[in-house]
Amino acid sequence: QNKIVKDANALEKAVKQAKPGDTIFLVNQEWKNVALTVFGKGTTLKPIVIMPKDTKKIIISGQSFLRIAGEHLILKGLHFKNGYSPQREVVTFRINHDLLANHCRLTESVIEDFSQPERFKNDVWVVFWGKHNRVDHCTFVDKLSAGPVIIAELNDERSQENCHFIDANYFKGRQRFGSNGGETIRIGVSRYSLTASRTQIINNYFERCNGEVEIVSIKSGENNISFNTFYECEGSLVLRHGSNNTVEGNLFLGNNKPFTGGVRVINPGHKVFNNVFKDLRGTAFRSALAVMNGVPNSLINRYYQVKDASIERNTFINCGPVLFGAGKDAERTLSPQNVAFSSNLMVNPTGNLIDDTNKDGGISLKNNAVVNLYKASLTDGFTLIKVNQHKKDALSIPYHKNYGADIKKLPFVQKSQAGASWYVEEVFRPSRANKTFNLASAQSQQIHKIIENAISGDTICFTEATFYKVDKEIVLDKMLHLIADKILKGKPILVSSSFKTLPAFITIANGGSLAVKGLAFKGNFESYGDVQCGIRSTDQAMNKHYNVKIDGCEFYDYNESTFSGFKASKSTFADTLLITNSLFRNISGMGINLAEEKEDKGIYGVENTIIKNCVFTNILGSAINVYRGGNDESTLGPFVTIDYCTFNEVENREQGTVVRLSGAQQAVVTNSIFMNSGQGGRSLEFREFRWDDIKVDYCNFY
Amino acid sequence: QNKIVKDANALEKAVKQAKPGDTIFLVNQEWKNVALTVFGKGTTLKPIVIMPKDTKKIIISGQSFLRIAGEHLILKGLHFKNGYSPQREVVTFRINHDLLANHCRLTESVIEDFSQPERFKNDVWVVFWGKHNRVDHCTFVDKLSAGPVIIAELNDERSQENCHFIDANYFKGRQRFGSNGGETIRIGVSRYSLTASRTQIINNYFERCNGEVEIVSIKSGENNISFNTFYECEGSLVLRHGSNNTVEGNLFLGNNKPFTGGVRVINPGHKVFNNVFKDLRGTAFRSALAVMNGVPNSLINRYYQVKDASIERNTFINCGPVLFGAGKDAERTLSPQNVAFSSNLMVNPTGNLIDDTNKDGGISLKNNAVVNLYKASLTDGFTLIKVNQHKKDALSIPYHKNYGADIKKLPFVQKSQAGASWYVEEVFRPSRANKTFNLASAQSQQIHKIIENAISGDTICFTEATFYKVDKEIVLDKMLHLIADKILKGKPILVSSSFKTLPAFITIANGGSLAVKGLAFKGNFESYGDVQCGIRSTDQAMNKHYNVKIDGCEFYDYNESTFSGFKASKSTFADTLLITNSLFRNISGMGINLAEEKEDKGIYGVENTIIKNCVFTNILGSAINVYRGGNDESTLGPFVTIDYCTFNEVENREQGTVVRLSGAQQAVVTNSIFMNSGQGGRSLEFREFRWDDIKVDYCNFY
Ligand SMILES: [Ca+2]
Ligand SMILES: [Ca+2]
Repeated sequence: QNKIVKDANALEKAVKQAKPGDTIFLVNQEWKNVALTVFGKGTTLKPIVIMPKDTKKIIISGQSFLRIAGEHLILKGLHFKNGYSPQREVVTFRINHDLLANHCRLTESVIEDFSQPERFKNDVWVVFWGKHNRVDHCTFVDKLSAGPVIIAELNDERSQENCHFIDANYFKGRQRFGSNGGETIRIGVSRYSLTASRTQIINNYFERCNGEVEIVSIKSGENNISFNTFYECEGSLVLRHGSNNTVEGNLFLGNNKPFTGGVRVINPGHKVFNNVFKDLRGTAFRSALAVMNGVPNSLINRYYQVKDASIERNTFINCGPVLFGAGKDAERTLSPQNVAFSSNLMVNPTGNLIDDTNKDGGISLKNNAVVNLYKASLTDGFTLIKVNQHKKDALSIPYHKNYGADIKKLPFVQKSQAGASWYVEEVFRPSRANKTFNLASAQSQQIHKIIENAISGDTICFTEATFYKVDKEIVLDKMLHLIADKILKGKPILVSSSFKTLPAFITIANGGSLAVKGLAFKGNFESYGDVQCGIRSTDQAMNKHYNVKIDGCEFYDYNESTFSGFKASKSTFADTLLITNSLFRNISGMGINLAEEKEDKGIYGVENTIIKNCVFTNILGSAINVYRGGNDESTLGPFVTIDYCTFNEVENREQGTVVRLSGAQQAVVTNSIFMNSGQGGRSLEFREFRWDDIKVDYCNFY
Repeated sequence: QNKIVKDANALEKAVKQAKPGDTIFLVNQEWKNVALTVFGKGTTLKPIVIMPKDTKKIIISGQSFLRIAGEHLILKGLHFKNGYSPQREVVTFRINHDLLANHCRLTESVIEDFSQPERFKNDVWVVFWGKHNRVDHCTFVDKLSAGPVIIAELNDERSQENCHFIDANYFKGRQRFGSNGGETIRIGVSRYSLTASRTQIINNYFERCNGEVEIVSIKSGENNISFNTFYECEGSLVLRHGSNNTVEGNLFLGNNKPFTGGVRVINPGHKVFNNVFKDLRGTAFRSALAVMNGVPNSLINRYYQVKDASIERNTFINCGPVLFGAGKDAERTLSPQNVAFSSNLMVNPTGNLIDDTNKDGGISLKNNAVVNLYKASLTDGFTLIKVNQHKKDALSIPYHKNYGADIKKLPFVQKSQAGASWYVEEVFRPSRANKTFNLASAQSQQIHKIIENAISGDTICFTEATFYKVDKEIVLDKMLHLIADKILKGKPILVSSSFKTLPAFITIANGGSLAVKGLAFKGNFESYGDVQCGIRSTDQAMNKHYNVKIDGCEFYDYNESTFSGFKASKSTFADTLLITNSLFRNISGMGINLAEEKEDKGIYGVENTIIKNCVFTNILGSAINVYRGGNDESTLGPFVTIDYCTFNEVENREQGTVVRLSGAQQAVVTNSIFMNSGQGGRSLEFREFRWDDIKVDYCNFY
């Protein structure tokens, strides 16, 4: 029997009353702000199906979520879009602690644009509880906020040894998250990682899942991750906790994009075979294959020793060295033991074949082959051979019957085979061509109106080299250029005409970006209120990345210790901050403050910071302050470049630091001059791990 | 004409319509949640008076505040109590930017218990705007939250050269605030400090105003701070910004209490004479007299050079050295110049007469006298003399006609002469004698009810050495003892029986304190939710200090990196945390986390931390983490003592620290053993200033 329902209550009632084999249709409409709960009992042969009347005609939007419990329910063709969940999850396979789902299925569905507005508000799009549940042929588009796309929970027996299926899904993009919490799939959690999950992750297509170092994080035992394609993903399939997992027949295609990884192995009893790793550029944790060192007497959430692993018949094409003993340091001292590495094929290795940080015989290298030795020398356990290419769809992959993956039999997943078949992505088209708005000083107050009417890419041109009085902060939620007219000799100067304190002259809100050129930002003016900052990112919710370019600008007269020229607010993330040819002076706080995120969780605010040809003078705090605290190893940034900068009379206080790049994982400071600065402390401060990449060169320190 | 009003609207209307000489009476009632606004115009001879019908019969309570504007208004006998302001101020001498008060007066009033519930929610009890306003004969009782008791604003001409009067007030206590922001009076602000205020602060009585290093902070010019008594105040009268201020005839009575200070001098043109400094134990910034070094090319909020100061005819009795060039470091390099120090009298100095960090002749010592030399040697500019004592009220003070203060003429203020004459403090009396509640394991859930009925000082005794299952956090807003029955062989073990994650087993709320003895706190149990912490202070609003004693307890099985045995939450403040004979083990976070306050503003969470005879084993993070960041010099803490502790398998990660006492200003680590710990980083980390007091002794590091 079929039924059409119009609201959440009707749906709940209909499913509860449904008989095996019934189908419940959602009426064609936008289902907005709906808490959908379905509980019912179908049978294996006669499931209850819940689906839209016409899949393409409904979306579930606003503050909505779906809870599923019971047996043999199939939810099909759902489209979550234009909203986010008010709960910790969008779709969850239980209603409450007592009511779980078993043998239920979410299929042919899409979760798109359904991220929390605040990037660190942790949620998950799909949470498995119970057993034998399945998510298949679904499409998941770029989750922006913290938390994995899919997780499986194993809190008690009802959800352990669960045999879930995650198959034929399309994971379409996930931007670099700049913190832990950017996983795409996580199965289990450290506390329950000693139990088996037996989840099957197969035939999925992962495209540019770049959230963090773990794309798939396995934290339980006896799972099977097989026949998936990882396309240009900046991370790895990681066997983080739990034992006896199987990784078979996956295809990792890096296309020589930076940071693309393969498989990382921790804990005992894993099997990794028949996988193809191609054109991966990741190193260290992101190596095509990284086998980690363990920790003696490890806590459950740390690193158990690798033992009894079998790594066989994998093909590595144009990759760096396979890394044994990854992460070795003063704590991770237990080398992998009884690891069989055999019958693997390495084609055109870009460096050594193998790097082993322990070299204690824990790795048994046998009967492997290599095609073309460039920089590497032939290691014991490898033979130099020649191979033929095997054509496979659009790929051409070396094949040998005795070594490497069994290409001929592997069912590599194509993008077109994965995800919801009906889904077509919307393409954005601008409403008009970009234009330039001229702004005279007398029109200062109109800038807010102009911005409201602007579209991304437009330009506002300041036409007079005099004071521009603004009475509130300028908030950008689109990409705009703010420039001084090229013909001007001096700079247009932004000042406040409000008696209130303004948090900044320009605030980048969610979706905003800025290129500013030739303007001055003066923090105090007459007896008007202070302006606390020249340019900052918003202290409101943000989940999109922003970009800022500052060229030929001046920031001055910020007279309190919490003020600064530029500030990246907590819980915001910039792809790139580029500051060139600019002057920061007479500031009682910091010049450039990228240190607002102080939680020691490896979180930082700007991926790429480039500061060139800038002058910092008479600054009480640090000229530049970058902070990333803690031991997290999920990310590679922040990347900082400081070049041709001058620091004069900056931060001479006791224990002060002129340029603080604490925790920057990649930093270059060159061609810069430090004078009358850092007299009570230091010119430069790092707090780097042994694997960080730090360079200081061609600098003068007076 | 007189009138009685019953509500805020009627009051506003009545004052607006009042004629010079009228009196408006507030009706006898509790004025709760009232936004009082008065605007009116009286004359010098015929002011308009606003006052309660019967002063002792009304209070202004709840979320209330008072705005005053106009001329010649007198507000008298007001009593703010049992509430706090929803604004930034309780009483303010303006209605808005345009409407200021001039020649208005708040007198015979009391502000008591009117602190923001959240200690870092900054507000001020009285804010001066306009000119010629006066606050006199008022009593201000222990402001608990951030911000001064009284400030004067000088933002524009209408409020500059203002000639306000702050006289005959009683500032009754202010607890150590543990951060900047604990001033009692501030006149001006650095931005406008180059203008004159001409405020008179006279005949006030300051009792135990211990908020921070600045009791009175002068940030403007030409003020007069005279004839005040500072009784056991842990701080100083500070001429922080602005020039040409006068400090005359004040009495500083330290009674040999630690950290009691006198006058600190910065900027040019000040006169400090005829003051008496008696039994002060402060050093450095809190010296009886400290004259600071300046900063070259100083920013407005930093340290201008001292020049052309005259410090004459002061009497120092039983004090440490007068300090010239205080704060000298790599940044504060400009010595005081043209400072005349003459005709002063030093009686029984406890150390050197003078410490001069510069010795460049900037100080002219002439014609001073000393009575009794113990440790000091006679310096040029001093003569050894004998004096007689002069009886003055209850005091007996040395007097000499040629040296020191002119005791005979000085009108030292008595406590009884200051403040609102009608005010009598309420004294708290407990409702019954303390008692002990026994708690068997089966009664675990009743603990919340027992606590509800308990009074401060009561005891809850756990009578069985088995699991006590609690299903929600135990919240304490009073002082309780939680103890194991003495006859038990093992420990009662608190575990969670909630499926939710609990933030802690025990949370200290505002007003709460805890002494716990012999209990175990196990962070995970069966498949119930995690408990994130054994004992913590609340993450809700707090403005009272708490105390925790932990003896013979055990904290174990906390399995996430953010978890810990004990945690002091952000924005809470403990006087003392004393942990003895306890075991911390198997923790993936920290043992004792006092590092939640990460803002680098000199803020910290516990004044005195004492950890003795404790064992920390198998801990992933730091065993003990104390953090105080930044350059602030307002406070003396945190004070940390670690004695007879053992650290085994603690924080071996890269750059990790076993015991981090970053920014602890006074630390002692003794008789402790560090084994298999800190292998990737360090055993102990400080980040101390040259003036901090750090001692590490008798420790073994393996
Ligand atoms: Ca992760
Ligand atoms: Ca202060």
